[in-house]
Amino acid sequence: MNNSFGEHLVLTTFGESHGPAVGGVLDGFPSRFRIDFDRVVAALASRAPSGAATETSRREPDEVEWLSGILDGVTLGTPIAFIVRNLCQYPEDYDALRHVYRPSHADLTYDLRYGIRDPRGGGRASARETVARVVAGSLAEQWLEQTLGVKIETTVIVPDNIPDGDSVGSAVRCSVVGMPAGKGTPVFSKLQARLADAMFSIPACRSFEYGSGAAALGMSGSAHNDEMEYRDGSLCFLSNHAGGILGGISTGEEIMFNVVFKPVPSVSLPQHTVTDDRQNVLLVISGRHDRVIAPRAAAVVRSMTALTLMDQII
Amino acid sequence: MNNSFGEHLVLTTFGESHGPAVGGVLDGFPSRFRIDFDRVVAALASRAPSGAATETSRREPDEVEWLSGILDGVTLGTPIAFIVRNLCQYPEDYDALRHVYRPSHADLTYDLRYGIRDPRGGGRASARETVARVVAGSLAEQWLEQTLGVKIETTVIVPDNIPDGDSVGSAVRCSVVGMPAGKGTPVFSKLQARLADAMFSIPACRSFEYGSGAAALGMSGSAHNDEMEYRDGSLCFLSNHAGGILGGISTGEEIMFNVVFKPVPSVSLPQHTVTDDRQNVLLVISGRHDRVIAPRAAAVVRSMTALTLMDQII
Amino acid sequence: MNNSFGEHLVLTTFGESHGPAVGGVLDGFPSRFRIDFDRVVAALASRAPSGAATETSRREPDEVEWLSGILDGVTLGTPIAFIVRNLCQYPEDYDALRHVYRPSHADLTYDLRYGIRDPRGGGRASARETVARVVAGSLAEQWLEQTLGVKIETTVIVPDNIPDGDSVGSAVRCSVVGMPAGKGTPVFSKLQARLADAMFSIPACRSFEYGSGAAALGMSGSAHNDEMEYRDGSLCFLSNHAGGILGGISTGEEIMFNVVFKPVPSVSLPQHTVTDDRQNVLLVISGRHDRVIAPRAAAVVRSMTALTLMDQII
Amino acid sequence: MNNSFGEHLVLTTFGESHGPAVGGVLDGFPSRFRIDFDRVVAALASRAPSGAATETSRREPDEVEWLSGILDGVTLGTPIAFIVRNLCQYPEDYDALRHVYRPSHADLTYDLRYGIRDPRGGGRASARETVARVVAGSLAEQWLEQTLGVKIETTVIVPDNIPDGDSVGSAVRCSVVGMPAGKGTPVFSKLQARLADAMFSIPACRSFEYGSGAAALGMSGSAHNDEMEYRDGSLCFLSNHAGGILGGISTGEEIMFNVVFKPVPSVSLPQHTVTDDRQNVLLVISGRHDRVIAPRAAAVVRSMTALTLMDQII
Repeated sequence: MNNSFGEHLVLTTFGESHGPAVGGVLDGFPSRFRIDFDRVVAALASRAPSGAATETSRREPDEVEWLSGILDGVTLGTPIAFIVRNLCQYPEDYDALRHVYRPSHADLTYDLRYGIRDPRGGGRASARETVARVVAGSLAEQWLEQTLGVKIETTVIVPDNIPDGDSVGSAVRCSVVGMPAGKGTPVFSKLQARLADAMFSIPACRSFEYGSGAAALGMSGSAHNDEMEYRDGSLCFLSNHAGGILGGISTGEEIMFNVVFKPVPSVSLPQHTVTDDRQNVLLVISGRHDRVIAPRAAAVVRSMTALTLMDQII
Repeated sequence: MNNSFGEHLVLTTFGESHGPAVGGVLDGFPSRFRIDFDRVVAALASRAPSGAATETSRREPDEVEWLSGILDGVTLGTPIAFIVRNLCQYPEDYDALRHVYRPSHADLTYDLRYGIRDPRGGGRASARETVARVVAGSLAEQWLEQTLGVKIETTVIVPDNIPDGDSVGSAVRCSVVGMPAGKGTPVFSKLQARLADAMFSIPACRSFEYGSGAAALGMSGSAHNDEMEYRDGSLCFLSNHAGGILGGISTGEEIMFNVVFKPVPSVSLPQHTVTDDRQNVLLVISGRHDRVIAPRAAAVVRSMTALTLMDQII
Repeated sequence: MNNSFGEHLVLTTFGESHGPAVGGVLDGFPSRFRIDFDRVVAALASRAPSGAATETSRREPDEVEWLSGILDGVTLGTPIAFIVRNLCQYPEDYDALRHVYRPSHADLTYDLRYGIRDPRGGGRASARETVARVVAGSLAEQWLEQTLGVKIETTVIVPDNIPDGDSVGSAVRCSVVGMPAGKGTPVFSKLQARLADAMFSIPACRSFEYGSGAAALGMSGSAHNDEMEYRDGSLCFLSNHAGGILGGISTGEEIMFNVVFKPVPSVSLPQHTVTDDRQNVLLVISGRHDRVIAPRAAAVVRSMTALTLMDQII
Repeated sequence: MNNSFGEHLVLTTFGESHGPAVGGVLDGFPSRFRIDFDRVVAALASRAPSGAATETSRREPDEVEWLSGILDGVTLGTPIAFIVRNLCQYPEDYDALRHVYRPSHADLTYDLRYGIRDPRGGGRASARETVARVVAGSLAEQWLEQTLGVKIETTVIVPDNIPDGDSVGSAVRCSVVGMPAGKGTPVFSKLQARLADAMFSIPACRSFEYGSGAAALGMSGSAHNDEMEYRDGSLCFLSNHAGGILGGISTGEEIMFNVVFKPVPSVSLPQHTVTDDRQNVLLVISGRHDRVIAPRAAAVVRSMTALTLMDQII
């Protein structure tokens, strides 16, 4: 299943960027959990464009319609389905792009893979799909927080100067405090492998590192090892280069990882590219697009983290 | 299934480091493929310690016993099961470690997770488990090469100086040439997500980046975008910051990624740690251990890459 | 995933009987297939109550709202999501049943399993859920027919006399003509095991037999064996006690199986039962309910057969 | 995965009938469970030919070699791998059958599916594969019994007269007492669907019915419904036509089902059949084969039941 994520808590998403709606089905969520719908609204707002000049001018109300799995605000244990309508549709904007493969977009590869693609705003490849992840992720985050006290925090890293009409690469740092020890499994379902899988499922992700990360390349074992001791009866780690995970299983320490996103590929400078009838063209993309990914992607990082961790715990 | 990898081509591994054997079952491998057993032997040799002073003194013959799925050297389409006996067993070496949690090893977390662990050399958490991956990976690599002409190459990066008795972090670069375009799927089964999942399933992996990788953080979109044009009827990419993958689907260009491994945690310097009855102790690990991971892990990177790509193709 | 069916073509259903909607997500459906929406309407009509005195008086328009995966009537290869609104809701009818466990319904076991249940018409346990299967099944049936010429036929078996106010057990015979040979797999994914799994996922199914079925108990091997011969260059089976399947793989002959459904448990006669606060009560269920399952279930049998077979073929 | 069974407790089997070994990997078995190896031996003995004139003369010692997952008789929580060598091999007996498709065997369909088959005794299609199920099933049965007091019983039904040189259909009735209430899930993973899937994965199974089964066809709802009442504070069902399952979830009552097996297809009477080079031949199968399946299959029914139920519980 290519549009599903998780083993025990399974999110299936659907919807094209300029189709009638995007949405999801969340299966495996425990029964009898009271949902805070305001937090879902807030999570969607943190993913939505803020109005900044560096962001897309597409403004969607992102109202969630809950279809199943919830009665009087409480989960039933049955699949939670929801949709968010796509209202701000200007498919005519995309007529000019119907036969052009935008550089560093998925236009070409979708055609290679499916022999057909929805040309309206990238269709299913659009980051609009992540709306469904944020809705479901908000439920998972609420459950982690209320049931176990797990807290997920993100920090956005954006270079200072973005040249006019261009875009720039960015990053998100994520920290999880309160993860219970002993969760996750070794070998092929290592907790870090699940997190990496989750992060690389976010569009534009290019790098994932956890704990000491890529810096481990220059370190000695004696400096890198996390020594332990009991202090007043509690187990203490003297450092946390492990990033809270050993052998694929959580240690109970803070889980830390970094995710790097490529620059937004929609830039207004002219670019050499090709069409689906094999012509070379010079493409100028108009319209106002996001110029940096991390600020809006942070909500997605947080959501995918919550879904991944809850999946390992239930 | 925590000990299985893949969706269509599924490898299940089993075995403790100092138990009777390690092995695997490879399900989904196509029928009527003639296996080159010499290549399997060579792959295992590239994973085995070379005799260098920086490597473990454990020397296993690593002879593969094929149990099923192959008749007269040709695959039947049924599960291919194999075992490799553990002959070089000195479990008494581990008696002293039976109750001690070695820093930055999985001893502690296995006990937290299972309430029991095999103290003999890390049991299932040992890198010995990767023998099974290399056997299966060699079959996948042969299939990719002979059927599609796909070539996987690795480069090992090891810092120059390793202090005596200490260990050091290292890295492996991997390049795949000849990957057919249009393979992989978007959204949650993105090709890069599968590769990341595969790499983080290798013990000690701390960082995975592909294409432009973490360097994308400082790049502008106009510099990062991979422009395209037709030359003499062939589609050409003018750069490959995408690392051969767009929207989770292969472009046909070279797939490139880097993996960083932490330093080997078994160092001979004294370390503060704890026991399973909550005592603080100063631990000195004796014996000769690997001091750097990449040289032997390269065979595992290659194998996991082959298994991942073949899984996406068949 | 408890609400998903299939391995390659995966249907996930959601929705409570008297919630806002029932619906589904069909993932894995091939791209570039033109859908005949009239056939979907016809399939739903064959599942809907006909107005006969033996059927429920609930009348839903069952209009399908397509949310994703289709552009201009043609599939995109992305998930096909759809909903059918529940309009004919009289939840107050169920107030009297809020605390009563109806005999031979799932009221009791839902409470045991989830600690909560939707009391409105059985919630998720209602046969209303099968609406989603019929929508998805119709697409699968269209694909099988147009791509491979596979034809699925069902025959309904209903006892002659149904006592007034009571219900009766019934059966559906299913025949598949044109199934390509060599489909399915042996051991745990036998074609017959998949079909049985599909049929027992339909509410009220009590028995599944294929080919010679339960009658095989009294047969000798020499009578039961299906001899073969070539006639005019074509392979012919002299009988088909195998029901079109040998060793879990299709032979190309007609696939035949029978499914028996229990009587509808909602009868108007007084019944001894209990409440969720452990009281004994005498229950009389009012309202007009279906009195026999097979006539409406035939569309579900057909749909689940189509989904199962297409899943084995793609 | 076509050679794996289960979602949480996953058995993967491998091995051809006359290859080096058959075996399995059982993943997900809880840690710290002490195994009674004598019970495994007894389970295998109940599956082995008894020496009766109605059974095959192949006599295998069926000694289990345990490869992993167990230390000092106690499970580690890691995969339990085991093999059973095939010692009684007379592949030359099968030379005559190398190019002949035996009627009602899987010879033809394996060739259609894989383009190759192991002609030695049916290869992977042989019931010899079930040895691995009985080993794993015995562990599951021990766990169910010791942890929850669940008891599985089988009764074999064999017609009185089997004509000399012919075979006959047979049946197994299975009863499970002590199944906890509230286990299983509704919709597509109904407990009865899992049991049906398990039973139809056993070679030669033609019919599965549970509770009232096929007899429900002639019953009225008022006769079929299982009324309930509290007696001395305990919930009592006044009948059990549900066979211990409502809405896919266990009620706590006895789970009952029947499985019918076709006659053994290897009969010594001459049969019309074809070869893989499209010749018509008259085949006489020599050697001593089982003439009835149920007596030996009962151990497999019991094992698959145990694996299925434990999978739903853990």
